[in-house]
Amino acid sequence: MSSTFGSLFRITTFGESHGAGIGVIIDGCPAGVAVETTHIQAALDRRRPGQSDLTTPRKESDTVQIQSGLFEGYTTGTPISLFIPNADQRSDDYSHIAKAYRPSHADYTYDAKYGRRDHRGGGRSSARETAARVAAGAIAGQLLAHFGVEIAAYVSSVGEVEVPLEYQELDLSLTETNPVRCPHPETAVRMEARIREAQAAHDTVGGVITGVARHVPAGLGEPVFDKLPAVLGHALLSINAVKGFEFGSGFAGTKLPGSVHNDEFYTDETGAVRTRTNHSGGSQGGISNGQDIYFRVAFKPVATLLQPQQTINDQGEAITLVGRGRHDACVLPRAVPIVEAMTQLVLADLLLRARANRL
Amino acid sequence: MSSTFGSLFRITTFGESHGAGIGVIIDGCPAGVAVETTHIQAALDRRRPGQSDLTTPRKESDTVQIQSGLFEGYTTGTPISLFIPNADQRSDDYSHIAKAYRPSHADYTYDAKYGRRDHRGGGRSSARETAARVAAGAIAGQLLAHFGVEIAAYVSSVGEVEVPLEYQELDLSLTETNPVRCPHPETAVRMEARIREAQAAHDTVGGVITGVARHVPAGLGEPVFDKLPAVLGHALLSINAVKGFEFGSGFAGTKLPGSVHNDEFYTDETGAVRTRTNHSGGSQGGISNGQDIYFRVAFKPVATLLQPQQTINDQGEAITLVGRGRHDACVLPRAVPIVEAMTQLVLADLLLRARANRL
Amino acid sequence: MSSTFGSLFRITTFGESHGAGIGVIIDGCPAGVAVETTHIQAALDRRRPGQSDLTTPRKESDTVQIQSGLFEGYTTGTPISLFIPNADQRSDDYSHIAKAYRPSHADYTYDAKYGRRDHRGGGRSSARETAARVAAGAIAGQLLAHFGVEIAAYVSSVGEVEVPLEYQELDLSLTETNPVRCPHPETAVRMEARIREAQAAHDTVGGVITGVARHVPAGLGEPVFDKLPAVLGHALLSINAVKGFEFGSGFAGTKLPGSVHNDEFYTDETGAVRTRTNHSGGSQGGISNGQDIYFRVAFKPVATLLQPQQTINDQGEAITLVGRGRHDACVLPRAVPIVEAMTQLVLADLLLRARANRL
Amino acid sequence: MSSTFGSLFRITTFGESHGAGIGVIIDGCPAGVAVETTHIQAALDRRRPGQSDLTTPRKESDTVQIQSGLFEGYTTGTPISLFIPNADQRSDDYSHIAKAYRPSHADYTYDAKYGRRDHRGGGRSSARETAARVAAGAIAGQLLAHFGVEIAAYVSSVGEVEVPLEYQELDLSLTETNPVRCPHPETAVRMEARIREAQAAHDTVGGVITGVARHVPAGLGEPVFDKLPAVLGHALLSINAVKGFEFGSGFAGTKLPGSVHNDEFYTDETGAVRTRTNHSGGSQGGISNGQDIYFRVAFKPVATLLQPQQTINDQGEAITLVGRGRHDACVLPRAVPIVEAMTQLVLADLLLRARANRL
Repeated sequence: MSSTFGSLFRITTFGESHGAGIGVIIDGCPAGVAVETTHIQAALDRRRPGQSDLTTPRKESDTVQIQSGLFEGYTTGTPISLFIPNADQRSDDYSHIAKAYRPSHADYTYDAKYGRRDHRGGGRSSARETAARVAAGAIAGQLLAHFGVEIAAYVSSVGEVEVPLEYQELDLSLTETNPVRCPHPETAVRMEARIREAQAAHDTVGGVITGVARHVPAGLGEPVFDKLPAVLGHALLSINAVKGFEFGSGFAGTKLPGSVHNDEFYTDETGAVRTRTNHSGGSQGGISNGQDIYFRVAFKPVATLLQPQQTINDQGEAITLVGRGRHDACVLPRAVPIVEAMTQLVLADLLLRARANRL
Repeated sequence: MSSTFGSLFRITTFGESHGAGIGVIIDGCPAGVAVETTHIQAALDRRRPGQSDLTTPRKESDTVQIQSGLFEGYTTGTPISLFIPNADQRSDDYSHIAKAYRPSHADYTYDAKYGRRDHRGGGRSSARETAARVAAGAIAGQLLAHFGVEIAAYVSSVGEVEVPLEYQELDLSLTETNPVRCPHPETAVRMEARIREAQAAHDTVGGVITGVARHVPAGLGEPVFDKLPAVLGHALLSINAVKGFEFGSGFAGTKLPGSVHNDEFYTDETGAVRTRTNHSGGSQGGISNGQDIYFRVAFKPVATLLQPQQTINDQGEAITLVGRGRHDACVLPRAVPIVEAMTQLVLADLLLRARANRL
Repeated sequence: MSSTFGSLFRITTFGESHGAGIGVIIDGCPAGVAVETTHIQAALDRRRPGQSDLTTPRKESDTVQIQSGLFEGYTTGTPISLFIPNADQRSDDYSHIAKAYRPSHADYTYDAKYGRRDHRGGGRSSARETAARVAAGAIAGQLLAHFGVEIAAYVSSVGEVEVPLEYQELDLSLTETNPVRCPHPETAVRMEARIREAQAAHDTVGGVITGVARHVPAGLGEPVFDKLPAVLGHALLSINAVKGFEFGSGFAGTKLPGSVHNDEFYTDETGAVRTRTNHSGGSQGGISNGQDIYFRVAFKPVATLLQPQQTINDQGEAITLVGRGRHDACVLPRAVPIVEAMTQLVLADLLLRARANRL
Repeated sequence: MSSTFGSLFRITTFGESHGAGIGVIIDGCPAGVAVETTHIQAALDRRRPGQSDLTTPRKESDTVQIQSGLFEGYTTGTPISLFIPNADQRSDDYSHIAKAYRPSHADYTYDAKYGRRDHRGGGRSSARETAARVAAGAIAGQLLAHFGVEIAAYVSSVGEVEVPLEYQELDLSLTETNPVRCPHPETAVRMEARIREAQAAHDTVGGVITGVARHVPAGLGEPVFDKLPAVLGHALLSINAVKGFEFGSGFAGTKLPGSVHNDEFYTDETGAVRTRTNHSGGSQGGISNGQDIYFRVAFKPVATLLQPQQTINDQGEAITLVGRGRHDACVLPRAVPIVEAMTQLVLADLLLRARANRL
């Protein structure tokens, strides 16, 4: 188990889908950051189930309780504990999978690793765990806001339906105007249709989320192992269902000649160092260069299907599994705040680490 | 700076392109692993410059010295120190870039972060640093060999030239039969031509390396933050020039419906749990499931060009930079052992961590 | 802030004296350890205030809630969250110290470090924080019990009143037979009198706790920096009010000649390697040798006095502070389970680390 | 094995008594610290054997080589590698102990832990390992000098011979005026005689080193687990032969009433917050308060005796061991720079950590 992430701005999470609740301790947040419950709750509301008819009907209010670390509206430098009680538990929904190894789920691997598991709702492997990340990310976001850093993510593809524009060409303020969280309205409509098509077929669909961080100061990232993209990739690849991460020009950039891919430096009218293109994605040598950081994260289709599947049980016997329970046909819309949160946690941590290293 | 990687099998590296040399301390390798200098040297020889006319003519013998941690041919459980002296240093080759910010290099970001830098050969940001990783990876490989784990990587694309088959359809023993390190001979010829074309144009070209780990026992990977793909992605994204990482079905998998993407479990004739497909890439819920682990790593084109480029110097003044020095037009062939080494380091570490966690 | 302790068996704590409560996440406990709430509650009951008229009359039931990580009575390998709500809060008891810097308390240093603090009851610096350690230690103790390791601590001095015998000459099962937690009944009576004398004088008194760990397997401790006594010392010196740590022969041993101090090895009738004396305190070269581990921990007198003291406020102005609130005149009796808990946490962690390192 | 110490200013050491040499990588030292080889060499010269006829005649020049991390006289922020080749190796001196378990040495415990060991000169458990700490400490000292922090240690007792004054009453500039490193000349003479007496008797003697850190800014130390005294104790208890650590009033303080022990605050003529007494030893609540940090470290008598001892071999058979080789009768004089180095490493690390935590 590794339930801790971060080096100086560090979170430790706990909780299962069907226990008392889930939570997180944030250790290392500097004193003096203004934090209101509403900041955290607003982030959680974007992740919680039941927010639209595109998502699972599981009803979780996901109400956060702040248990420590704040005094008179500000962080005190001591650990901040956030707790989110589980509300709408229906453990019997899962009795049919107590002994089954669901395809492309973590049932088998948890058994192989630990020898026992809490099967209810996937236990610790449930995506419900990500609520703790979102809550912690909201506080990291408050810290970053002090330094002017802005982070945004959006759904850039659902199945084969893709936004036809790059992030610079989009108005990211439109992301929250539709339930898919896609800032390109025409594509959002097609994405929504694609998700409903999957729902109707008792099937599921994956997609890609694009993330952008703006106004990140130059100097963040710790070579040679904790380069900015390496830590960011670690964070995003630790989210349930993620299968890939690329930043800047990514896989497509491997096809460009160096003479096109290189980002020429220039000094702008304010005297700031800038690059004419940004194939580097805001990181050179693993350190932020002050340009936009942008990246793409691949999410596989949800593994829980409301249709019969062949698999085995924990005795190795072949069985037919018929999906039940309350599930999303597509996690992408709800995963947007999770991608943002992990980005916030990474940048908050790298920001503190960069400061520690200066004479 | 973060020069340490790994949790239980842990490496710490040092060294610049033009100092006394580079090296690594391996801490946490169990006692009793048979290690010969030849294991390490063989791996280094695959990474070193000058091994073929496709690579930089810098002549580095990269001869490793074992300074501690071995006794009578076996590891003793104490830290293993490996040192690789720098031999062919021509610091004057770099005098022209002492004050220049080369496009898509780390000159500017190191200055922004540290306020000073050793500019010779890129200093710490030089890819020469990866020799230390390769040396350490060889020892991790010896540990993994004890447990039957096998790791192989190969060049699967150079620019737009791609191997047309999946890894399962290839004979990976052919990888070392050509200087490009591509196990598909016909494609290897085309890749070699593509690299020579870049050389002739004083340009560079990127590509993709595919990695495979076989016979990895089920149970490796530490949710929720150190999932196997997350740590592996971290490791690979920390290599110079890497821009993306995907495992299993990766980005392409986002376009498959869940009903196709899911990997059905079955019990084979030996009683082992297996999956009929392996879109999961050997990891479910972040834990290895005993199937092959496979992944793809994107490398951008080399940033050093032997043609004029517009950029600025450390005073912010516009300058024209004319590339000199000894450089690869394509790093892919020499990066294969680096990808293997980082994979070995990750799996050795996760193997020890998995063992620590059992009652 | 450093709220995490341990490498593989790792705890992260939170909470202040007067917030919602205090708690701890235990990460890295292997699956399959039998844990009942009663194990944890029993340990907490030995630490909690109000257990006898020798201690503070603050009434805290210290009732633990297990929030995650257990299933059907066993650990599952996932993080275990324990929460202890604060019950008997009287924040107004502390209004008189909101701006005062109490002598030998942490008020001034927290302000110097963080710029702000939750002054109620000492906030995070309150000894109430140690309840989380005790709760976590109980689970570490369950893990150690699997391996036969036994841990016991007792009060060996209060002020100048000392137990006249070494631990081997005492019946440690008598420790819980008196409120002072001293296994030497005659001395216990004198210690109790000494504490009542301090109470009557509105003064306080310190003392020493002796700890013993038996049946610790040889091989625990990680040279050269995480030697067993170094990690144990770290753990114990992190407890509030601790001023010193010595193990084995300790400071007194510096006066023995080497020829007397050395512990001769022999093989006993069962073939086990043993030493004739144990000045080493069960650790040689920082690694356990199978003999008893024993050590002494110095606790200063409680800093809160119910008599007037000269000090300053946060404006630097001289003030006279008159103590109020509910306080112990001597922490030693309640500190016994804390010393045991930190020892359990250290040995559980070193046990897992030792196992990770074997081929 | 744990060969890494520190969180932000972090060292990783390697090397055995009789291999190629010993060394250390320092990672996390900020860029811009002026470092000369002479700083490091001067510290090593105070630790090296053969410096006076009170110490082992092993002839090691202990000449340090800087392999990376410096450019034009300043640190660059990249890892600094220091290497000290072993020179005067006489491995045959140790053939008689290849299979013996020397009393109070680490031979048995290394075998129990690792199953094999490099017996020559004690291998990794040799005190020679501490040269790497001293070299690294010199660089930490340069960083601390930037902030005005001063560190000094001295021998305060040898066997029963003790300096009769507290550190404040001594002129610490006298420490280096005698081979014992005791700033009280009359006592130094008696200590020297005591050591010669042990030499003559083929016996050994222990003692105590006192350490002092002055001008440490308020705010260093990271509660609740990495309190300043806890981390300092960890560092000092990790030195070979150390059996105890106390700071401020230490064990003696347990006998004082709280009304005497408490340190009253006042504001001095410069407006600085100070305390009238300093029983706290410069740390309150685990955080430095700006007063002197002082502490005592107990060293046991050297375990290697030049007289016959009863013990066993690795087959469990009783043998008589006759000491040979080149050994100190008392390590205290040479341990002074080691105590200083570990103190420097701890304070450099806590300094960087404190800075990271501020908004």
